[in-house]
Amino acid sequence: MQTQAPASVPARRLGGVLGGMGPMATVNFLTQVIALTRASRDQEHVPLVVHQVPQIPDRSTAILAGSDAPFAPMLEGLRRLAAAGADFAVIPCNSAHHWYDRLANSQPLKILHIADAVSSEIKLRAITSPRLAVLATRGALRSGIYAGRLGDARMVTVEEAAQQLIDQAIAAVKAGQQPLAARLAEQAVEQLMAAGAQTLILACTDLSVALQDSAHRTRCIDSTMALARLCVAESTG
Amino acid sequence: MQTQAPASVPARRLGGVLGGMGPMATVNFLTQVIALTRASRDQEHVPLVVHQVPQIPDRSTAILAGSDAPFAPMLEGLRRLAAAGADFAVIPCNSAHHWYDRLANSQPLKILHIADAVSSEIKLRAITSPRLAVLATRGALRSGIYAGRLGDARMVTVEEAAQQLIDQAIAAVKAGQQPLAARLAEQAVEQLMAAGAQTLILACTDLSVALQDSAHRTRCIDSTMALARLCVAESTG
Repeated sequence: MQTQAPASVPARRLGGVLGGMGPMATVNFLTQVIALTRASRDQEHVPLVVHQVPQIPDRSTAILAGSDAPFAPMLEGLRRLAAAGADFAVIPCNSAHHWYDRLANSQPLKILHIADAVSSEIKLRAITSPRLAVLATRGALRSGIYAGRLGDARMVTVEEAAQQLIDQAIAAVKAGQQPLAARLAEQAVEQLMAAGAQTLILACTDLSVALQDSAHRTRCIDSTMALARLCVAESTG
Repeated sequence: MQTQAPASVPARRLGGVLGGMGPMATVNFLTQVIALTRASRDQEHVPLVVHQVPQIPDRSTAILAGSDAPFAPMLEGLRRLAAAGADFAVIPCNSAHHWYDRLANSQPLKILHIADAVSSEIKLRAITSPRLAVLATRGALRSGIYAGRLGDARMVTVEEAAQQLIDQAIAAVKAGQQPLAARLAEQAVEQLMAAGAQTLILACTDLSVALQDSAHRTRCIDSTMALARLCVAESTG
């Protein structure tokens, strides 16, 4: 058909999304990919194949318990994405990156690392040596996936009271209680700003959902948006 | 791990989503699936594999031109979903159902029909013989995918002026212009209500996006929500 002549459709590489961790975080990721793509019609958008399988065991719980339970189903998911023709993969879940090296080495797909995406976003926004706070699950913090990726930033310690609010906000997103999640996450952000944080790294994709309409949005580096930007760049080349 | 003991995770069938038509319509579908699922944590949500490939040629244009161009890539997409392990499939695009019979007969996956979902939704909401208006692409209207599925409803004719607003609203969603899409679609709804329509069938999944915050939402039967409800039921048995 004339309107879909091959010459008018730009080349796009097929992105594989290992999702469902949690489900709303994946939907938010897909929304950000669309928002960050220059497109005036369907055919110009980024093609993706998405494994939205929330049955993967909780990543943070597993890291804290020293359990390897999420690894096998995540690897299986990546293999399904490869079988479906994906050219590369993303995992819109920070805690899942605890298993990044083994996942990358156990199957053929290149995986874009979410902390590399955040690091690029910090450079893009020209944030120099700010006082940063990392909002994440306890598992992701234990795993240290951001270690060595945030340059010489001075880090603000997340106190137990703020971490409890973060934990509860994440659980509320997973339970579909968005207004509660927003309220809890906003309280955590305010405590961290009172403690001196100038920039907040939303290093949990469920927190990206909780804080999507936050009054402090401009102070946040959103790992979901950062990964979406990297994914669009990788697909459109 | 104790918290993910098999007994605590309900059985779920893997739904395959042939998406990208358009991309935001698929994201809206995924959001509705999550909203319609009873879940307090990730693992209770519906597992899906999603083929978000917007490169499939425009369905409405093809129907009007007598072109078969969308069929082969849609069939290919369904085969990829089957290869990825899907137990059944849904297509959150009304116009695509022009090819429903051939798609259903050309590959192994059972496909839930979006017009059957709308028909179920009308029964669920106990709407009896209302004055209905069907808001759809010109291609879907030509194809008649709702013919024979809306009972003895009295249909309100969609005049050319309203259809033009509908066409423009759909194009605006595909171009990422959500506020414009909402304004145009709302005008179409108001013209149809002035012409006597009591219930509006949103028979285009891009219109579901355009009218998601509509003042007239309670008068709408949303094909995206209807298909999501059917998909959750099929997955959770």
